[in-house]
Amino acid sequence: MSEFRVELKKIVDDSYNIEIGYDLIDKMLSDIGNGLVGKIHRFAVITDSIVKNLYGDRIIDIMKNKGYDCELFVFEEGEKSKTRKTKEEIEDAMLEKGYRRDCCIIAVGGGVVTDLAGFIAGTYGRGVPFINYATTLLAAADASVGGKTAVDTPLATNLIGLFNQPKKVYIDIAAWETLPKRQVISGLAETVKHACLADRDFFDYLDNNMDAILTMDKNACEHIAKENCRIKYEVVMKDELESGLREVLNLGHTVGRAIETVSDYKLLHGEAVSIGMVAQVKLSAKLQYMTVEECERVISLLRKTGLPTEIPSYIDRDALVKKLYTDKKVRDGKLRFVLQKGIGNIVEYEPGVFSQPIKEELARDIIMSI
Amino acid sequence: MSEFRVELKKIVDDSYNIEIGYDLIDKMLSDIGNGLVGKIHRFAVITDSIVKNLYGDRIIDIMKNKGYDCELFVFEEGEKSKTRKTKEEIEDAMLEKGYRRDCCIIAVGGGVVTDLAGFIAGTYGRGVPFINYATTLLAAADASVGGKTAVDTPLATNLIGLFNQPKKVYIDIAAWETLPKRQVISGLAETVKHACLADRDFFDYLDNNMDAILTMDKNACEHIAKENCRIKYEVVMKDELESGLREVLNLGHTVGRAIETVSDYKLLHGEAVSIGMVAQVKLSAKLQYMTVEECERVISLLRKTGLPTEIPSYIDRDALVKKLYTDKKVRDGKLRFVLQKGIGNIVEYEPGVFSQPIKEELARDIIMSI
Repeated sequence: MSEFRVELKKIVDDSYNIEIGYDLIDKMLSDIGNGLVGKIHRFAVITDSIVKNLYGDRIIDIMKNKGYDCELFVFEEGEKSKTRKTKEEIEDAMLEKGYRRDCCIIAVGGGVVTDLAGFIAGTYGRGVPFINYATTLLAAADASVGGKTAVDTPLATNLIGLFNQPKKVYIDIAAWETLPKRQVISGLAETVKHACLADRDFFDYLDNNMDAILTMDKNACEHIAKENCRIKYEVVMKDELESGLREVLNLGHTVGRAIETVSDYKLLHGEAVSIGMVAQVKLSAKLQYMTVEECERVISLLRKTGLPTEIPSYIDRDALVKKLYTDKKVRDGKLRFVLQKGIGNIVEYEPGVFSQPIKEELARDIIMSI
Repeated sequence: MSEFRVELKKIVDDSYNIEIGYDLIDKMLSDIGNGLVGKIHRFAVITDSIVKNLYGDRIIDIMKNKGYDCELFVFEEGEKSKTRKTKEEIEDAMLEKGYRRDCCIIAVGGGVVTDLAGFIAGTYGRGVPFINYATTLLAAADASVGGKTAVDTPLATNLIGLFNQPKKVYIDIAAWETLPKRQVISGLAETVKHACLADRDFFDYLDNNMDAILTMDKNACEHIAKENCRIKYEVVMKDELESGLREVLNLGHTVGRAIETVSDYKLLHGEAVSIGMVAQVKLSAKLQYMTVEECERVISLLRKTGLPTEIPSYIDRDALVKKLYTDKKVRDGKLRFVLQKGIGNIVEYEPGVFSQPIKEELARDIIMSI
């Protein structure tokens, strides 16, 4: 019998830049020309059926004019496409076109596109570089920092995936104006979440400037894009592999993800998170992590934003309670919720304790009350 | 417009131990009891339909007796099962049983099992720890060092996957005796490959002791298990992410992988690699990287091992040439081969130049001559 050690200790540098601005396609291509992804000149632009017309075709045209070898890969828009099947179809289409390890993926779109394309990039040829060109606030808030990529399965959302960092993220605020109002509002749920967990001043800003935001005021939009990235960045920086602090980003997502699935994706992600936020603040108030007034302020801001704060009548609440057990935070078969403390005060927690075990009866009571 | 940097530089330690011996199940369970994978006590044992009866059931029985929460996940044996579909089926079975992020995967079997299970572990809950319990020489030689995991697709072998390091590898030589002779011989192809690329003394050892190896002499088996790991380890240590040196491990695999696919997996991986080795040494001799005598010595050792050294008549050689272009080493549409220099002399290459661009006509001539 013999034993020896494989030593694989090394320094990994996955650092990257986030750029926030208007119409960043030219900037992205100039960055690529300046070596953003090294000498690679074969690109797979992945987008959905809506963003294709707004951005995908344009990017391909410009890139082809500049002499890049590139193709567009399009899937049907919507969370329902975030599956292993779509991943497989895009992989096969790329293989069919002869893409190998010497390519770069450009994800153009919202959170579904960046989640899916980032996952594809992570396993294509055991990993190729990718760039995120985020066209929605949700992608800016949720998908541009943290490196989380994933697909959904019939039994759970976001449970199959990996951590994969892009080479750069572009947040194109001009693209927000092309979105349906419902999408924009949905995207604001993660913004409210960030304010709730980390920054009371930003919460006040949202409360005082929601009209400007909803009418797409440029300064307001740039401010919230920046604040979203900054807050998420600060959390992720402190805990890249989600061993502790990063769990706070799950605020509102225990009920949120479950209701998103149980609604069969009739609810958009942000809408589901909004209802999850309501469940969470009610739980927080019940357990005295926050005052009833603070709880009401959060629900009131969500309402002002135009987000739903009640569980739609078509949802089977018993199925919803059962679904909670597919949450990633479940340990030893017990439900766990991230709960905010007051507004913007995550630092008040004991190190490493950001989510709390919650009895099913309590979760059920809250769900029945919303 | 604003830009900021996400700093993600960190030290990653993926080091692990390889243990070589006889009947290592108890040792593995004692390591787990001593904290090999931390506090995790939920396990998914993944194996194939053959190894299930030999080892899978036994491991589950022993683990359940010790009070571990564990289940067996079995797929149909053979390279044909190394697909996204099998991955999906096991994921769904694990989700169905309520497995979340707090589990550990134990891969029990040969290279197909360790490749597939390691890939599943890499994306399940965005990554859970895994242990390799290797029951074949091929797994010992090919799958225990390097962290490569992957599945095959209709258009390419091993192109969808990721780098993922196990927590520990157990190489159970007792298991080799349970293998069909054809499997054992197939496993020796990677052993010959390792000798060819890195160690002339080991090549001589194989040449002088092949009878003992083929009759499963314990000392000889332990020696080749160790030498395989050592050589691969030395190569991988110097280049974990396959940016250069590691490419030498691809020796014989350009034609090997292609013929494996074109044969529709009638050829075992090692058998295909053996034929790929013949193609490679003939190319090396033609380009004067080695003498004709050295070329003949390699082919003669492969023959002595009982491995095929000719392309079977049922193979469509034109299809085989076309298939070469799905190789991962293809750059800018050009074929590239790793070629050995003499026997055991990879160090003679210029740094970073281990594979050579090869004209299609030349590759075609060689293929037509075998």
